[in-house]
Amino acid sequence: MKLVVVGTLAFDSVETPYGQAENVLGGSASYLATSASFFAEPQIVGVIGQDFPQEHMDFFAERGIDCTGVQKTDGKTFRWTGSYHGNMNEAQTHDTQLNVLESFRPDLPEEYKDSPYIFLGNIDPTLQLHVIKQLTNPQLIACDTMNFWIEGARPALLETLKHIHVLSINDGEAKLLSGEDNLVAAARELQKMGPKHIIIKRGEYGAMLFSDGQIFGSPAIPLEVVKDPTGAGDTFAGGFIGYLAHVDEVSQQSLRQAVIMGNTMASFTVQDFSLEALKKVTLADIQSRFEDYVQLMNFESRINLPKD
Amino acid sequence: MKLVVVGTLAFDSVETPYGQAENVLGGSASYLATSASFFAEPQIVGVIGQDFPQEHMDFFAERGIDCTGVQKTDGKTFRWTGSYHGNMNEAQTHDTQLNVLESFRPDLPEEYKDSPYIFLGNIDPTLQLHVIKQLTNPQLIACDTMNFWIEGARPALLETLKHIHVLSINDGEAKLLSGEDNLVAAARELQKMGPKHIIIKRGEYGAMLFSDGQIFGSPAIPLEVVKDPTGAGDTFAGGFIGYLAHVDEVSQQSLRQAVIMGNTMASFTVQDFSLEALKKVTLADIQSRFEDYVQLMNFESRINLPKD
Repeated sequence: MKLVVVGTLAFDSVETPYGQAENVLGGSASYLATSASFFAEPQIVGVIGQDFPQEHMDFFAERGIDCTGVQKTDGKTFRWTGSYHGNMNEAQTHDTQLNVLESFRPDLPEEYKDSPYIFLGNIDPTLQLHVIKQLTNPQLIACDTMNFWIEGARPALLETLKHIHVLSINDGEAKLLSGEDNLVAAARELQKMGPKHIIIKRGEYGAMLFSDGQIFGSPAIPLEVVKDPTGAGDTFAGGFIGYLAHVDEVSQQSLRQAVIMGNTMASFTVQDFSLEALKKVTLADIQSRFEDYVQLMNFESRINLPKD
Repeated sequence: MKLVVVGTLAFDSVETPYGQAENVLGGSASYLATSASFFAEPQIVGVIGQDFPQEHMDFFAERGIDCTGVQKTDGKTFRWTGSYHGNMNEAQTHDTQLNVLESFRPDLPEEYKDSPYIFLGNIDPTLQLHVIKQLTNPQLIACDTMNFWIEGARPALLETLKHIHVLSINDGEAKLLSGEDNLVAAARELQKMGPKHIIIKRGEYGAMLFSDGQIFGSPAIPLEVVKDPTGAGDTFAGGFIGYLAHVDEVSQQSLRQAVIMGNTMASFTVQDFSLEALKKVTLADIQSRFEDYVQLMNFESRINLPKD
């Protein structure tokens, strides 16, 4: 199934307690598309500069990712430099160079427009809306956003949210956007803004799905090796939307499985820098890690209570 | 099934963003025993002063809790004053008056000694060991501890842990006690100290059980009303050990169900001050909330992956 992913293509420089990586492949679209490519046929919309190496484009091609919508323009590729400390739940940004991203306008190639599944990575909500307006056959549109847009472009974000089916957001952002400190209340307020399905990402604590009056809670599998959390959220999103595109069904059960698949894929990404761990993953690894999740969350639902 | 719970009986004064309560019933043994009393026949070991009102003793009697082991001595009952702010994950202690607790020595009445299930609430590990030495038929001994003992009485705590089957501890304490920042590594180190089963409590994020090389993760159900988290951990412990005592079986499956029962019981406690919410709970409420957990964690384990 075809699946449009919109986001950044970047060079990341990252330092964590477990090492560092310089000018490695990063960006939300890279993680999203690579993660989704195990399940569906992602089509990237993004922008790169003249310095973006062919090697990365070759990697995307190998993974069956359509890069027709990747615009190569004059200038340099977006760069991000950051570090993680302590429990590595939050990145410290040291430097952001927007470069070619500054004039990015996500125009869809003709053959992308009728794709039924769409994930809009964290970019200017005005650009997210620009993508939505080009779609001719959307079945499920999901998006991410961040504090920068919630605080700096709220009206545009609220307009975009009217057209979104799934909002995938971390807990701090959910509270900021909704104005509610309580997650249940926050999810309800966010649903009022448009999206029927709200995913709240909680880093090492997993994710929650609020949908159709039900709540699904998935802990993240505790990992002994977490080298670099960069891209975990985008990898989650890629596994989530990729799995839905593959099964081509949006139901309570498929959404729940897709959340587990998001967690599953993210659990690989954090075990190495950049996309290194994802590059080595096989479908057998995915099957096995998914089964770890089944095991992690399994308990006997028939309860033995005393008689009254 | 008989079940010994050792801990404090206290007067709490608590302030949260949702109100305040003055000199209300608190203490680890109160929460533990009341929570466990829905499943088993708890026997409290604790100490009270002359000021402890008959009304609280009557409440314990109504719940079928044996208070033979509650010593009433000269002096005042233990008092704790604290408050919660923001997301209420951590209490700020304003005042602690140990009072009669200072000379507490947990001697078991004769009829407690052969109880097979035991939960040692968070008290001096030397006293926890003193209890253990009086037991004649222990099947499962669980205990809690805290930073104060981990930092101030480490050798005594390590000695006590050699005799413990289940250690129930929060994530910060697990890291402090083990010296490991990673939860998987921390749990492994804690198991080396004695306890086969490690429960790591993560507040609003739920709990994890490390047992027999397996990990069980349970998110906490997100609640819209959280008035006062005081006693949540002890209520969890009471539901956990009470359920195990009731089914009288220690297996991977019963331990997992017991963790869910711990979360279930704690989810009631936090919805009001002191034991007010627990006082109103019925077995039907417990059944219903347990089923909410089944629903919260349910997903289809048969996965639909693309062909290679």
